[in-house]
Amino acid sequence: MQVDHLGIAVRSLADALGRYEPVVGGHGSPPENVESQGVRVTFLEAGESHLEFLEPLRPDSAVGRFLEKRGEGIHHLAFRVPDVAKALDNVRSHGGRLIDEAPRIGARGRTVGFAHPASFHGVLVEFVGAPK
Amino acid sequence: MQVDHLGIAVRSLADALGRYEPVVGGHGSPPENVESQGVRVTFLEAGESHLEFLEPLRPDSAVGRFLEKRGEGIHHLAFRVPDVAKALDNVRSHGGRLIDEAPRIGARGRTVGFAHPASFHGVLVEFVGAPK
Repeated sequence: MQVDHLGIAVRSLADALGRYEPVVGGHGSPPENVESQGVRVTFLEAGESHLEFLEPLRPDSAVGRFLEKRGEGIHHLAFRVPDVAKALDNVRSHGGRLIDEAPRIGARGRTVGFAHPASFHGVLVEFVGAPK
Repeated sequence: MQVDHLGIAVRSLADALGRYEPVVGGHGSPPENVESQGVRVTFLEAGESHLEFLEPLRPDSAVGRFLEKRGEGIHHLAFRVPDVAKALDNVRSHGGRLIDEAPRIGARGRTVGFAHPASFHGVLVEFVGAPK
């Protein structure tokens, strides 16, 4: 199962890209608002994976609360899967807790689903469908 | 620049593999002690990258203190680079702070070097040389 991306919570997408682009190489994608999650995101390519920088649109969003509580840093780990519903079922069948009981649409129009960090040793795990 | 691995601090390698192996697939590598860092590690393949699980050998190790302060979770992000010394120089030349001023030997006998999370928006960044 391949790492699709790593989500990094930051206060400013522009500041984060200014730091990461010269080191990782390349340029961040045009920022996209994901209103349902209250975040603005940009993706920076890193080999077969991406770094996803997340800036909160509102302080009471999940990422806004994360920043308030823990400061900037890695927010989640996303795996690329052929079928998000099956990946969620697999977690459930192994006794894991889910945040999303069914897939929904996330950034880049991709199907996504989150499992609970309590079931992955403190890591917020996301499953992302392959690009269409 | 490719993601080499993602370091995840856990209390027990066996418990973590028991949770991750059925979801990610595959099996963790034979555990290896990295005495200089006070950790015991195992790697689980995830596409072109790996998950590195880190269990502290001592409570006063960096990972032991991380667990005490923040609990289990993602500890660092490692990029694979052709030359670790050059990667560290590049961070320095862009005004970033380093933890390791020069490369040293880490897990799997690979050359490694860490940059300071204050310079990467809260992310502890490691550079890892390619396998020999």
